[in-house]
Amino acid sequence: MTNDQNSISRNDKEKSGLSTRFFYSLKPLEMEDRLKRLEQILKKDRFANHNEIRLVSVGIGTAVAEMPVSEKHLNGVNIIQGGALFTLADFAFAAASNSHGRIAVATQANITFFKGISSGKLTAVAKELNSGKTLSHYSVDIVDEKGVKIAYFTGAAFLKGEY
Amino acid sequence: MTNDQNSISRNDKEKSGLSTRFFYSLKPLEMEDRLKRLEQILKKDRFANHNEIRLVSVGIGTAVAEMPVSEKHLNGVNIIQGGALFTLADFAFAAASNSHGRIAVATQANITFFKGISSGKLTAVAKELNSGKTLSHYSVDIVDEKGVKIAYFTGAAFLKGEY
Amino acid sequence: MTNDQNSISRNDKEKSGLSTRFFYSLKPLEMEDRLKRLEQILKKDRFANHNEIRLVSVGIGTAVAEMPVSEKHLNGVNIIQGGALFTLADFAFAAASNSHGRIAVATQANITFFKGISSGKLTAVAKELNSGKTLSHYSVDIVDEKGVKIAYFTGAAFLKGEY
Amino acid sequence: MTNDQNSISRNDKEKSGLSTRFFYSLKPLEMEDRLKRLEQILKKDRFANHNEIRLVSVGIGTAVAEMPVSEKHLNGVNIIQGGALFTLADFAFAAASNSHGRIAVATQANITFFKGISSGKLTAVAKELNSGKTLSHYSVDIVDEKGVKIAYFTGAAFLKGEY
Repeated sequence: MTNDQNSISRNDKEKSGLSTRFFYSLKPLEMEDRLKRLEQILKKDRFANHNEIRLVSVGIGTAVAEMPVSEKHLNGVNIIQGGALFTLADFAFAAASNSHGRIAVATQANITFFKGISSGKLTAVAKELNSGKTLSHYSVDIVDEKGVKIAYFTGAAFLKGEY
Repeated sequence: MTNDQNSISRNDKEKSGLSTRFFYSLKPLEMEDRLKRLEQILKKDRFANHNEIRLVSVGIGTAVAEMPVSEKHLNGVNIIQGGALFTLADFAFAAASNSHGRIAVATQANITFFKGISSGKLTAVAKELNSGKTLSHYSVDIVDEKGVKIAYFTGAAFLKGEY
Repeated sequence: MTNDQNSISRNDKEKSGLSTRFFYSLKPLEMEDRLKRLEQILKKDRFANHNEIRLVSVGIGTAVAEMPVSEKHLNGVNIIQGGALFTLADFAFAAASNSHGRIAVATQANITFFKGISSGKLTAVAKELNSGKTLSHYSVDIVDEKGVKIAYFTGAAFLKGEY
Repeated sequence: MTNDQNSISRNDKEKSGLSTRFFYSLKPLEMEDRLKRLEQILKKDRFANHNEIRLVSVGIGTAVAEMPVSEKHLNGVNIIQGGALFTLADFAFAAASNSHGRIAVATQANITFFKGISSGKLTAVAKELNSGKTLSHYSVDIVDEKGVKIAYFTGAAFLKGEY
């Protein structure tokens, strides 16, 4: 999401365009530290928590999240609400897109619904489609416990300064 | 959402392609009854309820929904989560797309995020872009209390039998 | 594209919902015949021909197309026009989505542009994301001669009768 | 389209974030000059020209383009090819998104097809959905001569330096 009032200030490195290069020169240990910091941020996602969405793992450019479908995720005709599927995918996308050490704010997302379900555990797997200087793009597959495809998501993120 | 196991059976009129014509010949009173029935279905949307999303109004091809943004809607950096915005828009879209008397299941949706916010009441206004025999399309504008655009959503629905 | 005036009449099998099962029971030779018939239809795509887009191959649920970028594909600032990239992807999508023996009309498509180029040969590879009873979904990757990603496309098709 | 090798260099004003403010302080005459310059750039769009797409008008945040549908725009089943519709919409979007005096490169676009046609003149009308510091969003309606909706397009553009 574009957020002009974002309180996270860009540092000078980012302004000068050096942040990416700087980040990629980090030693493995520092990268691990960053992923840990990212995990802390993601754990504070209250909308994900409120809807029982949980981060399973996050790597560089990839992430996995899951959601056990229950009563609270259903719509008025007892099928999972589109918003619940979107939120699961968006959370995995947020994790993956922020994994490079720079703050990534979602600018756009698209979701296609393949199959309506009412129970079971869903897993969302985010993968990087492309990563540029200022924009990056991800796809997310949502599958059920048997691997049946439930929905497909793509998202674009705007890259800001380091977190 | 496409849902092959959907328990709502198509009636014979729909199968023969007569349902739409039948519906449009309904007298005003009958249409009002249908919108009332739709409102009842929408009130049972547990995901919307769980996230404090409320239907304001629904008309033929249009609907308004609102959501007071609170702590539970925020992500790990204290901005409204994309999924909360999507769910609000999707709920207004569901109301509008189901307003013609036929069950409309979402097949695809797209959202563009314009501005990150952290509080205040958001309103989603759904309008019909087009309605065909088997597919209909809607746009949804999400605005804040001052009318500032927060997000823009478009959705496609597959039309099934009468509800 | 939804086309109510489409002259290709649905046959009775399709109306009764039997067409898909019928098709999948075809012997390999018959399937090959169908892919040949599809190739003939695709060769008559005048918009693709006019813009030097060529089908490389088509299989069940997949297709490859290519386009040598030349002067005619450029916009006013000498970069390939977005419409040229879209048309290349859309053509591969049309080939792949029609490969199952049923007429597939595009209802929606999305394209993300990764990199502007001005020359060289582009290749579009279409893959099936999902295929349901009435809707199918495909992704298309466009890459340059070195395999660098130029654009990513997703498309939805509505499935009609056999061709 | 993101184009890292873009030959149009960003000037210093843009780098310092001053370009927008500078532009909006232009006197009316200067703005007219800019729109004229933009029209010259659009007239050199060879892909639009090759496919008989013509700019009708361009204003601040809006544009109209048209295309007389002929043999060359048809696909293998004699319906207008999705790429022809996309290109028409994309051209109107390019005109509108570049009308603010800054170079706008498309990053993403979405098109929904409502109705297949085979002849007649199509008109595309682009309108601004939102314009931020670095991204702007537009919708484009494509209608036939009777005003019947043929397709709906939305596009996102990344804003660079002044042209």
